[in-house]
Amino acid sequence: MLGQMMTQPLLISSLIDHAERYHGATEIWSVETSGGVTQSSWGETARNARRLGSALSKLVLEPQDRIGTIAWNNRRHLEIYYGVSGAGFVCHTINPRLFPEQLTYIINHAQDRVVFFDATFVPLVAALKDNLTEVRHFVLMGPRDEAALEQIPGLQFYDELIETGDENFEWPEFDENTASSLCYTSGTTGNPKGVLYSHRSTVLHSFASNTRDVIGYSAMDTVMPVVPMFHVNAWGSPYGCAMSGSRMVLPGPDLHGEALVSLIDKYGVTLAMGVPTIWQGLLAHAEKSGSKLASLERTVIGGAACPPSMIDTFREKYDVETVHAWGMSEMSPLGTANHPLAKHRDLPIEEQHRLRENQGRPPYGVELKIVDDDGNDLPNDGITQGDLMVRGHWVLTNYFRMEDQELLKDGWFATGDVATLDPDGYMTIRDRSKDIIKSGGEWISSVELENIAVAHPKLANAAVVGVSHPKWDERPLLVAVKAEGQDPTEEEILAFFEGKIASWQIPDKVVFVDALPLNATGKVLKRNLRDQFANVLME
Amino acid sequence: MLGQMMTQPLLISSLIDHAERYHGATEIWSVETSGGVTQSSWGETARNARRLGSALSKLVLEPQDRIGTIAWNNRRHLEIYYGVSGAGFVCHTINPRLFPEQLTYIINHAQDRVVFFDATFVPLVAALKDNLTEVRHFVLMGPRDEAALEQIPGLQFYDELIETGDENFEWPEFDENTASSLCYTSGTTGNPKGVLYSHRSTVLHSFASNTRDVIGYSAMDTVMPVVPMFHVNAWGSPYGCAMSGSRMVLPGPDLHGEALVSLIDKYGVTLAMGVPTIWQGLLAHAEKSGSKLASLERTVIGGAACPPSMIDTFREKYDVETVHAWGMSEMSPLGTANHPLAKHRDLPIEEQHRLRENQGRPPYGVELKIVDDDGNDLPNDGITQGDLMVRGHWVLTNYFRMEDQELLKDGWFATGDVATLDPDGYMTIRDRSKDIIKSGGEWISSVELENIAVAHPKLANAAVVGVSHPKWDERPLLVAVKAEGQDPTEEEILAFFEGKIASWQIPDKVVFVDALPLNATGKVLKRNLRDQFANVLME
Ligand SMILES: Nc1ncnc2c1ncn2[C@@H]1O[C@H](COP(=O)(O)OP(=O)(O)OP(=O)(O)O)[C@@H](O)[C@H]1O
Ligand SMILES: Nc1ncnc2c1ncn2[C@@H]1O[C@H](COP(=O)(O)OP(=O)(O)OP(=O)(O)O)[C@@H](O)[C@H]1O
Ligand SMILES: [Mg+2]
Ligand SMILES: [Mg+2]
Repeated sequence: MLGQMMTQPLLISSLIDHAERYHGATEIWSVETSGGVTQSSWGETARNARRLGSALSKLVLEPQDRIGTIAWNNRRHLEIYYGVSGAGFVCHTINPRLFPEQLTYIINHAQDRVVFFDATFVPLVAALKDNLTEVRHFVLMGPRDEAALEQIPGLQFYDELIETGDENFEWPEFDENTASSLCYTSGTTGNPKGVLYSHRSTVLHSFASNTRDVIGYSAMDTVMPVVPMFHVNAWGSPYGCAMSGSRMVLPGPDLHGEALVSLIDKYGVTLAMGVPTIWQGLLAHAEKSGSKLASLERTVIGGAACPPSMIDTFREKYDVETVHAWGMSEMSPLGTANHPLAKHRDLPIEEQHRLRENQGRPPYGVELKIVDDDGNDLPNDGITQGDLMVRGHWVLTNYFRMEDQELLKDGWFATGDVATLDPDGYMTIRDRSKDIIKSGGEWISSVELENIAVAHPKLANAAVVGVSHPKWDERPLLVAVKAEGQDPTEEEILAFFEGKIASWQIPDKVVFVDALPLNATGKVLKRNLRDQFANVLME
Repeated sequence: MLGQMMTQPLLISSLIDHAERYHGATEIWSVETSGGVTQSSWGETARNARRLGSALSKLVLEPQDRIGTIAWNNRRHLEIYYGVSGAGFVCHTINPRLFPEQLTYIINHAQDRVVFFDATFVPLVAALKDNLTEVRHFVLMGPRDEAALEQIPGLQFYDELIETGDENFEWPEFDENTASSLCYTSGTTGNPKGVLYSHRSTVLHSFASNTRDVIGYSAMDTVMPVVPMFHVNAWGSPYGCAMSGSRMVLPGPDLHGEALVSLIDKYGVTLAMGVPTIWQGLLAHAEKSGSKLASLERTVIGGAACPPSMIDTFREKYDVETVHAWGMSEMSPLGTANHPLAKHRDLPIEEQHRLRENQGRPPYGVELKIVDDDGNDLPNDGITQGDLMVRGHWVLTNYFRMEDQELLKDGWFATGDVATLDPDGYMTIRDRSKDIIKSGGEWISSVELENIAVAHPKLANAAVVGVSHPKWDERPLLVAVKAEGQDPTEEEILAFFEGKIASWQIPDKVVFVDALPLNATGKVLKRNLRDQFANVLME
């Protein structure tokens, strides 16, 4: 016997409908690619999304055809998110910082029929377009631009395209498991692979992220996703914020500390999200400029391990709570978030702070386990480390167009991360399995060493990689960036590790570099470092 | 084309699985019907629920057979919630304060096959049992009790029953739209009608209630649902708290101020929920005893209009935030909750407080509209009042076993409430349509008059009903309960209305009573007052 309750499909269009209906006037500030800030609203986003959905429906497209975007975080990108998925197409967000060959591969592999792109990328698209065999329409996200048209014949313009659409377009209804959006992984460890989200997975993920112990977007918040909309849908914030009716600040192309600090201060951002490297620049600028980041209440930091010293700085200098979160493209992305438990209220405050450092607990909807090389379950004792496996409502089953490859093991997805789990469900990422350093049969966590290094006041950034060693197979090498105006010695840095970690885990060597190689989402490309410094310990 | 994401059914069993896995040691304190407090945990709740599910599966029952409970808020009741629904039966929570004839009617109408009940209700069940034609098993929620067995031959005992079950029982998997639970409305306006919830509606409702702008249960919280588990599933808290892994305090049979204050203080309750009448007792006792309710951070008040003076007292004397919420059995129950918007941050504090007084905004998943007598949409201007209609993922389609009666109008459910909606989505309940006072063609809100009356320091409680009047058809009558040790006059009370409301809306008369007639959930039974005082203005 079924319950006697209304059943409506969980569609992405219902999120924007809700935001329009109950938060129509709520502001969305967007840094334009052409400079300057525009103010729009959830109401305007909804109307333009419908016009876009209507305009797209008049092109010769099939349901769930992929529609690519190469764009910054801005208001048109937000409209495209809703217009494309709402009308039943698949919104394929593309990382513009990939190599041209990777871009061509991804766009062709996804079979994108339309590509929307920001003015920044006119030269890029002009160079690639002849290889993009599946694309029928190129659309510049802005008003008519004759110069661009000369470079890309047949180019269409977003502001004109939506003029052809109907503001009263009605969102189609369909199965909630229909594909809604597509994102390729960051390509940190290899070539990007596509993850095809569904409407249902997206709405359930939004519900989970809006719960208090995950991100907990509120209509009281002014949310700035610094994490790009081409990187796992800006962690789902465009959906989560529509669900809660939050104000949004979309920071556009410039993600340097100075630009971000001024947006926070000007628009009263209360909640900002991004990868650790972004916050390094922001904190450095805040320190220099004397901004107190007065409006900021919470940051959500993930995508790579957040150094404990960063959490401390946010708390002590700026009275900002940091939520350390872990996720993956394959998980929409939210897997865990660090929030305390009731029993922690009674602990000494220093201990409470220490407990906030790991990657946190899974929300309802995500299950985690760790296994050994043979796939046997390992204990959740907070000590034993193993391969992390996940399962849940917003976890993939296959990579897109790689369906012939059996990805899951007994229904679980292998993350490629090595982690510990404690009895309260708190997870600590020890490392990626490809990055963990295997020194004479023992494992060394590169993340742990990096967390120590970046706490050194004379270093701006640091990465640790395993490089070949004649005796121990692999030993840790510290690759460090000096802080502005500082000139530490190798000895000084290595001495800093003493007493903080077993002596055999201390790196063998420090090399100083001007900058670390970062991938498109701001993560350190350790494989580049491994290649570059492969033999420094063999000489 | 479908997305490539895992699809697992949204089942109630997955909530308790999550709580066990990640919050297994988190405490649940339960006031026993026999006195005293037991400490259990989410882990123990899960294990006992599986044992119960297993034991039930061995009885001769069909899938989705109804299993009744007549019980207070306690740990066994919580286990039954999960054991019954998890195993694929329907958990029918019964309001013990109904009249015996109503109880018989409901239990027979629901076709309950098993009835679980607390020791309090042995005499009640003994008296009713011969009329309960569908029930095969009566189970006392406790250990073996020979005296009870004598009164109810064949009686079984919960603690023995679960002993026959398997702790490793595996929850069955089935369609997420399957019926999970059944609750009859409060019977404030007429005879109770059954609402049959589904697993999906329950899980989606839990997601919504756990979002920050609804209730926002957290693992940091110690939650005390004072609202009974027989009243719309204690507003869904047993599900929402499992989802978030909150501690729970289940207050058992004694809901007087003294008992509640001592539970709050002893167990560090941070969040408590209930109807306004309950809080009246609690506040009175806190005042008397000098308790500062130090641990309490938030109250959620709903089920009837929360007087603004109560919100003020909580804030000013106890530093407690009140979330005023509105809902119905027909809505699982959450329909709206009052939380501020970002733009309110800049308002003068007094204005911010005033904005917290109404019933609040709908979360994603609920849609509201107001219509006139002919079903035409009315403007959301905050002034126009109309019949409130709702639609959403956790709203009913039919009353149970009344499927032949077309309940919805164009897919919307008519709530029977009269409300205004403002452009930001904030709703103000003006009255129930049956309670609104029709004075010479004009409508007077009884709720508004009551809110003024209860703010009078010499009154403990008050209700306003429309009674017949020779000239105006109906006029408002104030039925008031004097505060302890106070002796106000009618004139004094009526004078208090002056300047607060248009003079033609001031009640015609005050009658003092010792207590108001309350229904089983603590709501004033206005139809009783209307009957009792039908002619006081006709003489
Ligand atoms: N809080 C965190 N702490 C440590 N590592 C994290 C954290 N959050 C994310 N990560 C890392 O990021 C990974 C997920 O990143 P993403 O899906 O963006 O692509 P990628 O794994 O970097 O790229 P690819 O899979 O293509 O190599 C996780 O598997 C984990 O290794
Ligand atoms: N915050 C609130 N303010 C005003 N009224 C409220 C509030 N919350 C709930 N209500 C009233 O309670 C009603 C829902 O209550 P419930 O479902 O428990 O049964 P009932 O309506 O009292 O009983 P019945 O439908 O059997 O007459 C709403 O329709 C509304 O009239
Ligand atoms: Mg990866
Ligand atoms: Mg009702």
